Amino acid sequence: MPTATETTTHHTEISAAQRRVEDDLVDRVVASFDDCDNPRLKFLMQRLTVHLHEFIRDVRLTEEEWNTAIEFLTQVGHITDDKRQEFVLLSDTLGASMQTIAVNNEAYEDATEATVFGPFFVDEAPEVPLGGDIANGATGQPAWIEGTVTDTDGNPVPNARIEVWECDEDGFYDVQYGDDRTAARAHLYTNDQGEYRFWGLTPVPYPIPHDGPVGRMLTAVGRSPVRAAHLHFMVTAENLRTLVTHIFVDGDPQLEIGDSVFGVKDSLIKRFEQQPAGTPTPNERDLGDQTWTKTRFDIVLAPANPVYEEN
Amino acid sequence: MPTATETTTHHTEISAAQRRVEDDLVDRVVASFDDCDNPRLKFLMQRLTVHLHEFIRDVRLTEEEWNTAIEFLTQVGHITDDKRQEFVLLSDTLGASMQTIAVNNEAYEDATEATVFGPFFVDEAPEVPLGGDIANGATGQPAWIEGTVTDTDGNPVPNARIEVWECDEDGFYDVQYGDDRTAARAHLYTNDQGEYRFWGLTPVPYPIPHDGPVGRMLTAVGRSPVRAAHLHFMVTAENLRTLVTHIFVDGDPQLEIGDSVFGVKDSLIKRFEQQPAGTPTPNERDLGDQTWTKTRFDIVLAPANPVYEEN
Ligand SMILES: [Fe+2]
Ligand SMILES: [Fe+2]
Repeated sequence: MPTATETTTHHTEISAAQRRVEDDLVDRVVASFDDCDNPRLKFLMQRLTVHLHEFIRDVRLTEEEWNTAIEFLTQVGHITDDKRQEFVLLSDTLGASMQTIAVNNEAYEDATEATVFGPFFVDEAPEVPLGGDIANGATGQPAWIEGTVTDTDGNPVPNARIEVWECDEDGFYDVQYGDDRTAARAHLYTNDQGEYRFWGLTPVPYPIPHDGPVGRMLTAVGRSPVRAAHLHFMVTAENLRTLVTHIFVDGDPQLEIGDSVFGVKDSLIKRFEQQPAGTPTPNERDLGDQTWTKTRFDIVLAPANPVYEEN
Repeated sequence: MPTATETTTHHTEISAAQRRVEDDLVDRVVASFDDCDNPRLKFLMQRLTVHLHEFIRDVRLTEEEWNTAIEFLTQVGHITDDKRQEFVLLSDTLGASMQTIAVNNEAYEDATEATVFGPFFVDEAPEVPLGGDIANGATGQPAWIEGTVTDTDGNPVPNARIEVWECDEDGFYDVQYGDDRTAARAHLYTNDQGEYRFWGLTPVPYPIPHDGPVGRMLTAVGRSPVRAAHLHFMVTAENLRTLVTHIFVDGDPQLEIGDSVFGVKDSLIKRFEQQPAGTPTPNERDLGDQTWTKTRFDIVLAPANPVYEEN
């Protein structure tokens, strides 16, 4: 078994004539893109061709396996609609989403690390004021989240837009209920000191939607569909690199089992401190006999990357 | 620009720390398949992971490009139905179908070469007797096709099942009309001498369906959707390797422009000899004032490959 990053292929045992047939085909397909007048698209298609053919040749893909792959992709396509993006789930579960994030968010000094976007973001989530509650009816243990947004020089970033979204205690995002509710998602802005704070819910682990072809794939390979508990953040501010990330929950057993989409980074695991019922809340919210948690997430934004900003 | 078969990647300019982050992610995704109890599936998923991540890292895929890819695959999925298989078209136009054929049909002595299956085969096409006409209302210049089926020792293969299918003179297969007609497709059997013969239509070039996402991809990269003129064959016989192939038409200008699915092999280009109107036909068929063509295609089947037969 080759190591993960080894690119040597397995078709060394084939005849020279067979190798030539296969090489010639790759060359012809690559050449078919020669007239593409968009140099980036040409490069992408030619390199896609090379890697795709390398895979087929490496594993000596059978025609039956090819048929299975076509049928699988067809199922992924058919279950995908406005509310369900099975191709994103597929990309996520193959780590392709996370690798794309990694490639585009190289570590920059102490800037906060990025992670996957996921399929549950919704544009135009309601605004909440600082200290407001994003739950809007979503059930779960209240969690107080506060922190700052700064740049890598430590300067506060006022008026940064923070989008937050998470599942409820049953592991469902609002959009999964199919009744147009908006809950456990919102946006807010940092104040002049770059501070933010809001009430959300203590994150809980949830399975990605696994009643479709991606779920069947995970079952076939013996993998859990469950994501480590997390709260999504997207932070945008002028002249700074947009940050898409999560915070995870220290002590969540799923961190050991493994996050189904490979989103965990140690720096993003935060302690949600349990507060007994009756503990005074930071902004005099009356939680009755409910317990709650609090955590802190200080966000550091890298400078905007000119390579990506020019697109 | 690297050559087609070069596997060296472009991410040599990234920092060691960044490379480690990316490598670690690949290792984690590969390890996630470790518990798969189907060794072949485990191998396929782990090698898919490696090659997919190599592609993303090689091209430094941007998040915008990733989004475009997800949207493209979604469109491919949504246009695909019982009658239209856009994933097959995608595989075909990337040469992936032909590479799979190549990998599974290694040259064996003088056995006839294989080519792509295509999306237009239909099970249970009607049987025609030897010398029968497969057109069943499909329009086009009549073509007499005859030949033998033998094994690689030259022994005739009696009772070989030959499936043939092709488009009409307008470039459409029967299934593309959406009216349940069956035309220009049939099956027949070789006689005791391994001979076969039938009336079909002189093949004409046709575009693959290009009003969908694959067609838009071809337009974006400056490629023709047109396939070189061809007639499909699938030949099955006991203890011999099933042959899926075409014959192409010598002199077809599309052979120079390039077949949109990379199916052409020199050995499969046949001369369709033009016959003036009134030329007597091989089996006294009265063609009135129509011209017709005739060609010969002698088919040699390899022994069944025990590697694939045991599945
Ligand atoms: Fe999530
Ligand atoms: Fe065809």
